[in-house]
Amino acid sequence: LQNLTDSLTKLFNARSIVMAGASSDHNKWGYIMLSHLISGGFSGKIYPLNPAADKILGLKVYKSISEIPEVPDLAVIVVPPPAVLHVVKDCVKKGIKTGIIITAGFAELGAEGAAMQKKISETAREGGMVFIGPNCNGVMSPWNAQHIQFPAFHVPRGNIGIISQSGNVMDVLARQIMVRGQGCSISIACGNEASLQCEDYLEYLGNERHTKVILCYIEGFRNGKRFIKVAKKVSKNKPIIMLKAGKTQAGAKAAASHTAAIAGTDAIFESICRQTGVIRAGNLDELVNIGLSFLNQPIPKGHRLGIVTAGGGFGVLAADICTEYGLEVVNLTHQTLKELDQILPPWWSHGNPVDLVAGSKREDIFKAIELVIGCPNVDSVLYMSLLPAMRIAGFNLPTDKDERARTSHEVLKSVIEVMKRFEDIAKKYNKPLVAASEYMWGTGIEEAETVYQLGQSNTVLYRQPHEAAQVLSALVKYGEYLQK
Amino acid sequence: LQNLTDSLTKLFNARSIVMAGASSDHNKWGYIMLSHLISGGFSGKIYPLNPAADKILGLKVYKSISEIPEVPDLAVIVVPPPAVLHVVKDCVKKGIKTGIIITAGFAELGAEGAAMQKKISETAREGGMVFIGPNCNGVMSPWNAQHIQFPAFHVPRGNIGIISQSGNVMDVLARQIMVRGQGCSISIACGNEASLQCEDYLEYLGNERHTKVILCYIEGFRNGKRFIKVAKKVSKNKPIIMLKAGKTQAGAKAAASHTAAIAGTDAIFESICRQTGVIRAGNLDELVNIGLSFLNQPIPKGHRLGIVTAGGGFGVLAADICTEYGLEVVNLTHQTLKELDQILPPWWSHGNPVDLVAGSKREDIFKAIELVIGCPNVDSVLYMSLLPAMRIAGFNLPTDKDERARTSHEVLKSVIEVMKRFEDIAKKYNKPLVAASEYMWGTGIEEAETVYQLGQSNTVLYRQPHEAAQVLSALVKYGEYLQK
Repeated sequence: LQNLTDSLTKLFNARSIVMAGASSDHNKWGYIMLSHLISGGFSGKIYPLNPAADKILGLKVYKSISEIPEVPDLAVIVVPPPAVLHVVKDCVKKGIKTGIIITAGFAELGAEGAAMQKKISETAREGGMVFIGPNCNGVMSPWNAQHIQFPAFHVPRGNIGIISQSGNVMDVLARQIMVRGQGCSISIACGNEASLQCEDYLEYLGNERHTKVILCYIEGFRNGKRFIKVAKKVSKNKPIIMLKAGKTQAGAKAAASHTAAIAGTDAIFESICRQTGVIRAGNLDELVNIGLSFLNQPIPKGHRLGIVTAGGGFGVLAADICTEYGLEVVNLTHQTLKELDQILPPWWSHGNPVDLVAGSKREDIFKAIELVIGCPNVDSVLYMSLLPAMRIAGFNLPTDKDERARTSHEVLKSVIEVMKRFEDIAKKYNKPLVAASEYMWGTGIEEAETVYQLGQSNTVLYRQPHEAAQVLSALVKYGEYLQK
Repeated sequence: LQNLTDSLTKLFNARSIVMAGASSDHNKWGYIMLSHLISGGFSGKIYPLNPAADKILGLKVYKSISEIPEVPDLAVIVVPPPAVLHVVKDCVKKGIKTGIIITAGFAELGAEGAAMQKKISETAREGGMVFIGPNCNGVMSPWNAQHIQFPAFHVPRGNIGIISQSGNVMDVLARQIMVRGQGCSISIACGNEASLQCEDYLEYLGNERHTKVILCYIEGFRNGKRFIKVAKKVSKNKPIIMLKAGKTQAGAKAAASHTAAIAGTDAIFESICRQTGVIRAGNLDELVNIGLSFLNQPIPKGHRLGIVTAGGGFGVLAADICTEYGLEVVNLTHQTLKELDQILPPWWSHGNPVDLVAGSKREDIFKAIELVIGCPNVDSVLYMSLLPAMRIAGFNLPTDKDERARTSHEVLKSVIEVMKRFEDIAKKYNKPLVAASEYMWGTGIEEAETVYQLGQSNTVLYRQPHEAAQVLSALVKYGEYLQK
């Protein structure tokens, strides 16, 4: 096992990489992967391998692995399917211990491909080599500036680990994290798992220092028992959030043809989640939203929720959806109600949701939130509608371009200030305070910039009540699991 | 009834507006509403009313309604609660037939407020006056440049009607439509419905020429029987999509305190939907997504779905979620499979989802989509992952600012071109073709710009498989209702 950890450490922190199948043809994976690795700023040594070229992208090309003047930490294999076995044999001969096989056309195509894949994995195992894939679109290891994947974006350094049995899904998750101003520790597309499997990555990320939360997209487990054992251990320290595909018959059929994975029944998976503390997400957006929340929210003690809203409709929607997600929209204590009476206008809702109604003063909103989060009946708080809590003068946004840009900047500063105050309140009471608000004070473009900048400040403003409910429910479930 | 239509036509297309409670204090609603109406470009006559001012925002101020030299089409009332009755009496005396009462503090506060509200509505009724509100944040009627609402954005002219029993929710919906590059016909915040009720608006929008689809946020019906009658009539010609709040006990309690609406049970509402063809949305995003789809998709004949994907994981997720939303991921005919064999690489998935796998040529993607949508077993098609269908050279986006902007523009053009081709295919086969794709080729800011421009071209690219499933399911339900 220590060997495996050492190998994975080397794989994700390579100092030297051989790329078998490197190409100067812009349409080939061997070019795309190589150019992307270079533009990502990889500072180690790269050895492109191609029998018919001298230089690619300014790098000296080698004709064979044996020629390379050192033993590279990692072999990236992008050659056509029939040539993969040969390359793996050469790697083993050279003493290379880790690989990423991008090439597709193996077990996912049927018996013939499966046989070829089996020979490859046996050859590797006998030679003490482990590899990711085949049929995968790579790995992002931004702390090592090691981006071996398509399409060409470089996810920044961060604290979210990704394990995905789909390359496209990995890319969507990593891009969403990037757009939200956050980054990844390590992001892995598993491919066919002929050597390394998702349980190996999970165990590794469980001990990897940059990883604080782990997002998984799984179509099926090849070793369910080992997964349970590993997940139990990891989820004691780090939350694991999972989107499990192949729930329905149609989905399971599609999964079989995609990565040759056996989906298993949904009931079995539910039971695995209960045993291991794995938190289930319903779709990709939910997976990312929940992941982000674990980076900056305390873990709640229970499922009792206080809702504070500056819009009545949001309060109704939130009460509905939070109840549906298993949260209890609890009665506030008599004492809390009395204290709220002292700061809110007489016509406030006098219950939970606390509807602040129009006309509340800005500072009173923060006071009301503190009263509710401090209420002994409440484990976490959802606040909705940011505008009244913001320090902005006037409501008509200027149309002049420069003036608009200045105003946008002021608005952005104000949003971040509010969110930082929320974070302070959450920390003070050690209870989650999740905020959801439509970005009512600007365009979609200004919103995208704000979303990014909020992430850079390690905070998240969710848009809709249902997103906040999903996130709060996940925080509660993880808290309940840890208490067990 | 013709009277009511005439009154509502006047209300939403006013040529002259008196604003009772107009103010020059920037923090008061009487200022915010007035300045917003002016900046929205209203071209009719505005009469601000205030006993203590001469000019507000450059407009002559009147001390009383009787002084006004004509009978205004519409009275907007922003005075404090105890003064509202008096203003309504003056309106009636003057012969004003329509009003919008922004002021809150009536039935939503209890018995005393309800009594005051009753007097107001009786006075209006006896005087032949109808009004929106009280306790509402207004109306947007962009075809008349008549924006009487807060916050200060002016939703553009378009074809989506909004009826909302929450002002904040109305604003969220209108803003989302705006951010997505589309616009509204008329958008109404109902408030307490002391005079006009949601059924009145529904009936009006059913006949209003700019309205093609109607989005509703409803907490409770005050006249369920009339709603059923009106909805049945309207949904024959225009789809009605509704988010019904107050489903849970906590939500119903919140609704009662918000707009004094009686939520009714969820089972009753389900039965109303079945009877009337009203399509139910699960949350605000879904409501907007479905609304947009009805602007540009044909109505499908049934629930049999073909999935075409350039990413295997997306296919699995889509098969799952579409099945859960009641769509059938159908077997393609032998003939269609044979024809697909001729254009796809030998290792394609040979089933539905049609997984194009890496290496498909751009034009073959369009051919594959046409084969699937043309298959007699298929009523609609979901396509996922736009990048391989796009005409873009190279994969590394430039870092130089100007070059990046040029590339972004080319990418945008390419996205719109693909979506227009999809629209042509949908039209040719008269079946929906919905596309979902993460915006893998740019930043969040570039994405926001593209989302807006796509809307301006009357098309929508959904982001996630679950959004596409919600939309397709709604199209199918509406089609099934029309066939009954």
